[in-house]
Amino acid sequence: MTFRIEHDTMGDVQVPADKYWGAQTERSRNNFKIGPEASMPKEIIEAFAYLKKAAAYTNTDCNVLAAEKRDLIAQVCDEILEGKLESEFPLVIWQTGSGTQSNMNVNEVVANRAHVLQGNKLGEGKTFIHPNDDVNKSQSSNDTYPTAMHIAAYKMVMEVTIPGVEKLRDTLKAKSEQFKSVVKIGRTHLMDATPLTLGQEFSGYVSQLDHGLKALRNTLDHLSELALGGTAVGTGINTPKGYDIKVAEYITKFTGLPFRTADNKFEALAAHDALVESHGALKQIAVSLMKIGNDIRLLASGPRSGIGEIYIPENEPGSSIMPGKVNPTQNEAITMVAAQVMGNDVAITIGASNGHFELNVFKPVIAANFLQSARLIGDACVSFNDHCAIGIEPNYAGIKKHVDNSLMLVTALNPHIGYENAAKIAKKAHKEGTSLREAALELGLLTNEQFDLWVRPEDMIGGLK
Amino acid sequence: MTFRIEHDTMGDVQVPADKYWGAQTERSRNNFKIGPEASMPKEIIEAFAYLKKAAAYTNTDCNVLAAEKRDLIAQVCDEILEGKLESEFPLVIWQTGSGTQSNMNVNEVVANRAHVLQGNKLGEGKTFIHPNDDVNKSQSSNDTYPTAMHIAAYKMVMEVTIPGVEKLRDTLKAKSEQFKSVVKIGRTHLMDATPLTLGQEFSGYVSQLDHGLKALRNTLDHLSELALGGTAVGTGINTPKGYDIKVAEYITKFTGLPFRTADNKFEALAAHDALVESHGALKQIAVSLMKIGNDIRLLASGPRSGIGEIYIPENEPGSSIMPGKVNPTQNEAITMVAAQVMGNDVAITIGASNGHFELNVFKPVIAANFLQSARLIGDACVSFNDHCAIGIEPNYAGIKKHVDNSLMLVTALNPHIGYENAAKIAKKAHKEGTSLREAALELGLLTNEQFDLWVRPEDMIGGLK
Amino acid sequence: MTFRIEHDTMGDVQVPADKYWGAQTERSRNNFKIGPEASMPKEIIEAFAYLKKAAAYTNTDCNVLAAEKRDLIAQVCDEILEGKLESEFPLVIWQTGSGTQSNMNVNEVVANRAHVLQGNKLGEGKTFIHPNDDVNKSQSSNDTYPTAMHIAAYKMVMEVTIPGVEKLRDTLKAKSEQFKSVVKIGRTHLMDATPLTLGQEFSGYVSQLDHGLKALRNTLDHLSELALGGTAVGTGINTPKGYDIKVAEYITKFTGLPFRTADNKFEALAAHDALVESHGALKQIAVSLMKIGNDIRLLASGPRSGIGEIYIPENEPGSSIMPGKVNPTQNEAITMVAAQVMGNDVAITIGASNGHFELNVFKPVIAANFLQSARLIGDACVSFNDHCAIGIEPNYAGIKKHVDNSLMLVTALNPHIGYENAAKIAKKAHKEGTSLREAALELGLLTNEQFDLWVRPEDMIGGLK
Amino acid sequence: MTFRIEHDTMGDVQVPADKYWGAQTERSRNNFKIGPEASMPKEIIEAFAYLKKAAAYTNTDCNVLAAEKRDLIAQVCDEILEGKLESEFPLVIWQTGSGTQSNMNVNEVVANRAHVLQGNKLGEGKTFIHPNDDVNKSQSSNDTYPTAMHIAAYKMVMEVTIPGVEKLRDTLKAKSEQFKSVVKIGRTHLMDATPLTLGQEFSGYVSQLDHGLKALRNTLDHLSELALGGTAVGTGINTPKGYDIKVAEYITKFTGLPFRTADNKFEALAAHDALVESHGALKQIAVSLMKIGNDIRLLASGPRSGIGEIYIPENEPGSSIMPGKVNPTQNEAITMVAAQVMGNDVAITIGASNGHFELNVFKPVIAANFLQSARLIGDACVSFNDHCAIGIEPNYAGIKKHVDNSLMLVTALNPHIGYENAAKIAKKAHKEGTSLREAALELGLLTNEQFDLWVRPEDMIGGLK
Repeated sequence: MTFRIEHDTMGDVQVPADKYWGAQTERSRNNFKIGPEASMPKEIIEAFAYLKKAAAYTNTDCNVLAAEKRDLIAQVCDEILEGKLESEFPLVIWQTGSGTQSNMNVNEVVANRAHVLQGNKLGEGKTFIHPNDDVNKSQSSNDTYPTAMHIAAYKMVMEVTIPGVEKLRDTLKAKSEQFKSVVKIGRTHLMDATPLTLGQEFSGYVSQLDHGLKALRNTLDHLSELALGGTAVGTGINTPKGYDIKVAEYITKFTGLPFRTADNKFEALAAHDALVESHGALKQIAVSLMKIGNDIRLLASGPRSGIGEIYIPENEPGSSIMPGKVNPTQNEAITMVAAQVMGNDVAITIGASNGHFELNVFKPVIAANFLQSARLIGDACVSFNDHCAIGIEPNYAGIKKHVDNSLMLVTALNPHIGYENAAKIAKKAHKEGTSLREAALELGLLTNEQFDLWVRPEDMIGGLK
Repeated sequence: MTFRIEHDTMGDVQVPADKYWGAQTERSRNNFKIGPEASMPKEIIEAFAYLKKAAAYTNTDCNVLAAEKRDLIAQVCDEILEGKLESEFPLVIWQTGSGTQSNMNVNEVVANRAHVLQGNKLGEGKTFIHPNDDVNKSQSSNDTYPTAMHIAAYKMVMEVTIPGVEKLRDTLKAKSEQFKSVVKIGRTHLMDATPLTLGQEFSGYVSQLDHGLKALRNTLDHLSELALGGTAVGTGINTPKGYDIKVAEYITKFTGLPFRTADNKFEALAAHDALVESHGALKQIAVSLMKIGNDIRLLASGPRSGIGEIYIPENEPGSSIMPGKVNPTQNEAITMVAAQVMGNDVAITIGASNGHFELNVFKPVIAANFLQSARLIGDACVSFNDHCAIGIEPNYAGIKKHVDNSLMLVTALNPHIGYENAAKIAKKAHKEGTSLREAALELGLLTNEQFDLWVRPEDMIGGLK
Repeated sequence: MTFRIEHDTMGDVQVPADKYWGAQTERSRNNFKIGPEASMPKEIIEAFAYLKKAAAYTNTDCNVLAAEKRDLIAQVCDEILEGKLESEFPLVIWQTGSGTQSNMNVNEVVANRAHVLQGNKLGEGKTFIHPNDDVNKSQSSNDTYPTAMHIAAYKMVMEVTIPGVEKLRDTLKAKSEQFKSVVKIGRTHLMDATPLTLGQEFSGYVSQLDHGLKALRNTLDHLSELALGGTAVGTGINTPKGYDIKVAEYITKFTGLPFRTADNKFEALAAHDALVESHGALKQIAVSLMKIGNDIRLLASGPRSGIGEIYIPENEPGSSIMPGKVNPTQNEAITMVAAQVMGNDVAITIGASNGHFELNVFKPVIAANFLQSARLIGDACVSFNDHCAIGIEPNYAGIKKHVDNSLMLVTALNPHIGYENAAKIAKKAHKEGTSLREAALELGLLTNEQFDLWVRPEDMIGGLK
Repeated sequence: MTFRIEHDTMGDVQVPADKYWGAQTERSRNNFKIGPEASMPKEIIEAFAYLKKAAAYTNTDCNVLAAEKRDLIAQVCDEILEGKLESEFPLVIWQTGSGTQSNMNVNEVVANRAHVLQGNKLGEGKTFIHPNDDVNKSQSSNDTYPTAMHIAAYKMVMEVTIPGVEKLRDTLKAKSEQFKSVVKIGRTHLMDATPLTLGQEFSGYVSQLDHGLKALRNTLDHLSELALGGTAVGTGINTPKGYDIKVAEYITKFTGLPFRTADNKFEALAAHDALVESHGALKQIAVSLMKIGNDIRLLASGPRSGIGEIYIPENEPGSSIMPGKVNPTQNEAITMVAAQVMGNDVAITIGASNGHFELNVFKPVIAANFLQSARLIGDACVSFNDHCAIGIEPNYAGIKKHVDNSLMLVTALNPHIGYENAAKIAKKAHKEGTSLREAALELGLLTNEQFDLWVRPEDMIGGLK
């Protein structure tokens, strides 16, 4: 590999000759060899591209940056957004906790790439755009990185998480309606209980996801607040008047998402409660998905020795040794995602609670965990939807067998013969392996006609949704 | 101890002669000797009192319960709410996961206490009120316990958590205004940074708590949904028409809190996402409190070898061996509470995600953790407020010393002499242990007059809140 | 209530006239009204009694305390251990994070109770024993509280946790042997798989608990280290020569447990990795108990519409509305305990990681969570053992039905006819609802005799334990 | 892209023409588009290479596989271990929870690559090596994947985690010795306390890491147990006699690590307590690293307004806006790693506790989190060591200033003039801003000579390590 020399305030550094990054990026590469390279989420880099472009526009509007520089900066930012410079961001999550080095990575790449776009050769001559004085103008790592966190998080939630959860929610809603007349046995404590319809059972899942989506949307207002304009400690030192509001408007314009400047810039740098809040909602959805994923695989269990009340699609040969076996693999994927999101919630909680004074320095670990959770939930919901939920069908034979055998229909007799008499019937049938009807008649507690009249599964499912 | 004989569908049980509880409570006492006795939160018992009374009223309105029975049930419920029957609820959290046995404990106590209120002797004769057929009429453990969870949680949040957090928030807000002109050094990465005011620093804490309170209020709508009317599996079997809506209205009336019947009863029994959601907000507040508590004890550290920028009240002799030492004990209490709440969040997450089919059976552990968190946050905020926050005063001498010594004021020179020149000055002063002014003049980068004009801490604190 | 006046270095305080505690305890009561009163675990108080007595003996041996004072101190400590002074320790967990106030609570109670034992009246005259100069001699809160944590934790683990887990382990081992010939269907991915014996299935649970017990015992060496002798910051200032080793010997003698002085006193005050380590093992056991509890309730599910391969004891009427239903309530209790322990682990992790310099100040929250987990696991194992495990019996009919119907026995054919042919048989039988034998013969892939020879569930369970 | 057709028991699948993987891998790629591609850790793939080779050798020894097949399989496994086939494993973590598809990915790649090594063209003709019948012989996904988990985890712990932690431990030990005479102020509750040496302070960190390493090593025995030989459900169906012991011996031989066959194969498939146990130790180390990282950045805080008792190396320009500022970036990286490991612990706990019957199906998420933690801890310790710990030096001026100013030396007077008199001196000096000596003399409690004799910081640091 060939190198060129770059320098910063600490001195000279050898940088790979064909890379746009500069001295500070290279120092970080060398100083933080922790885990796989380039682990800083690419969504953060893209968010930086939006905000650097917005800052350049705002700076020009505020008369502190020449329009020519603005346009060059914007041009490189657009290239980043188009994915043309993907190999230029080699840094890891486990760097400085303010994300300073990724901010500088972007600054350096923009300056050097602009230099080349102007027709110069990389590494030759002084760049027209200065990474600090121009690209980073009116900014600090301390306000850019948290701004990038909110942009990336908000975007992921809107583009991946919510559509994914909604897709699954809509399918489950359709299934709930499709199954609304399929009367089946209920189960509480994993034991047989009074009946409900399969549609009612699925309506619970729909309601969970509806509440989860609502909870997630409730958090978006906090997440829409941007730190940009706070600069080093939240006071906004070295920013022109009106900068913070205007830069948020530009970010809104470029991303199409409703950002605004933060209510309080000191909080916005020193704490990440907005991400704690939104991830709390992601965790709630993970809790719901764990329940739903577990229920559906239990309902599909079998084929001969399980619960066996629904069929799920066969997507792959299930086992390398047991032919013919088909496994609830999508359920396994989505419940693993749920476990991951629950763990990520703790990592974020710990990172967010450990800030000191004017700056929280667990930013990259918070960002990475958030973005992983938001991505995984969205992707897993789509995968679960497309390869499992959409193909769920009742196992009518299995469902009927359970309803016909059930002892729990005895509950219907409570209002007629009292709790203790009903209990006697159920216990007798259970002990002797007979049906409720037989037990009831033998005990002389009611007539055959009364049994027909009173014990009707289809009347036991209520008028409730 | 003397005993009387009670019986249930399984047979006879010996019960302490002077206790109102019956056979099922006694079985649970004997079967679940796990941890200290009577650990089931008393707030749950009180919530049961509200709901049993509401159910009785609704049942009478629906013509399925005699008014005389209603009034007797209501009378005992009122006694429970007045705290007259505290020793009658001996059960533990670690019982059946549906809380059935605590539901029966209430049913039995109501029936037997009513018997006595009617002038009978406990254990003699058949009770006029039947624990199942009357007290539990139109109910199941499966819908009563989750209803009690929501009532108890909502009440605690409204009566303890929110007022406590608001009290602390208001004090910090007042301090933020009181300190609005106290210019002090900022710190990022725990290192000296550009200045801000002590008021600005505190405004970040206020903003965190404001956002936390808003996040908590956002969750209340979900928490206001009541399962009651779902009975055994969510279908509402054995409830009269209109019961679910009306019983929620009575609960609203008796508690003064805006409950409503759940959107979906299947979710309401099988999942506890509402508690996950609200506890997510409690955890967010815990994250904020950890940050605030840590910052304030660091700011108060010393007296001679710490940061020393504020004084906190002296509440007690701090150490048994080191005379004269005063410790940030309120900060220690509130950050311990924060750690507990973060742990409780995981317990709730795990419990809530492990439901099966129509019933989640981690109800008591979810309830107990929620109520502990909500109580501790509220109490700890009041304690921290009354014994610490309210007495915080600036250590003007300490603050001034740090500002005067600071190298970071050099940032003010960036717009005037550029980033790299500013860096040179700071480095020289740092290396030689001199002031910025001396270093700047020696380097010839600016004049004495320019230094006065450009480096003014009070101009570096922005126009931001 | 009547009061007397006590004083400390800060001045006078009103104390309830009939209580032995003094000024500092009373200050703490008033300053920390957080959660229920007296929440500081009583095991911590008992541990203090052991260590105060041991310190008195050591101080006398080292010639810094008169024998008469030693004996008085020891007499009060013995009263505490006998439970005679239970109402004298009103403080909460949420106090100073070093536990100083509970240390002083003990010091004050010892001094005042000794005063009374000498025939004086409480509050009258100067006490012969001084709370600081005598009871706390050669000690600091900073080394006594962590010493009490280790004593209490070690004792609970040895007296409650390990015996409880062992009891359950032994029963499961006996069941594993009892069921060693009961061939049943295996399940992977919740789907039918090749057979195993019920004894083999239970042997996995035994192995989990054996490994968990071993893991827990591995941590005891760290837990046996005592901080006492480190005093204020770990240097042992104000302790006589040889004190630290001797005091650990006395604690060993009084408790009957193998304590020793800590390898490094600075760690012992500033970190609580020993409790993190031991609680890590408790959490591992909780993970095992969650698995075991879940499996057993799934195996017992039914009675008509579940897996139904074992019977568990009927301990109580299961539901207030569904007569005859018996629920896996012990499983619910033990899995709730598991969820709690997992949450406690996070609270401890957070508390233990947030120490600063010479002292961790999350001591009481760490202690309380540890002791709760250790107690709950032990108690829950005994409860689960006595009321569930010991009564587990195979449901032979249910087990046989599943084995006879199974498609998965086809695996036995892999070595004979190859994977893909075996798969064809299984798929055909599955599709047509027939037996494997019928499908195999129809496909002409083997003869009736070969089927008998090759497909024998009892030959498919291996020679493994 | 061009494709070829592969098939499995479900039918035909289009596979990229130049890739060695087959039908089942391709199905998984299409069915699980969750998160970034190829997220299954490469260490798991390498572990599969070891075990497939070991299985082939064992199968040949047991006379169930031709030596020619064994050698071909081994040749491809060696290529995988040499990193030659890295692009052949495209699957994600979020697949089937048994890892079946990654097992098949390896089986397919081995079979097809062997086909090419024999001189054939990929996709043409039947392969000599069959993915199931040969590469997977005597195996199931259910025992191979957990075996791969243990191999990969053990290897990572031995090769990355332990050496990394030891490196840091050794440096801190050397620093502890280097600083053994540097007397400095102690701090408890973040407040000034009695003195100790900087070497003593660092000895606490060494002791934490020593205990952490011991705890980690204690877990290795459980981690050394291999599931291989258990096949589908733990019974070892379809394995030759002696296979399980022999295959573990081969794995030991090939990896150089002391593996053995699992004590109980049912546990080994159905539970992952061994990984829970080892990760518990990783989490303990994370707790220690959080403490150490926090302490060191607090000690280095400043340069003018912090604690300022040590210097840490300057590795990069710290801020893009504040020249001259150097930040504790390595501390930030290592504490972020600690937060991640604590979160991963919860993900693993949840995954491991949710197994059902004979198979835990959270295997990939457990493996991925474990390997990330083990890697990050090792890497972060090396990075922190090389770029921070190794360069730590005392700030002698800062340390001296704090000792000279301290009030806490008053503790040395306790044995001479009693606790309450000592307190008076400290309070007076504190209130009046004077030295202890001045206050003591003014109060007439001791003479100048006595002060010199009794208050000697160097005598207050004990004889303790």
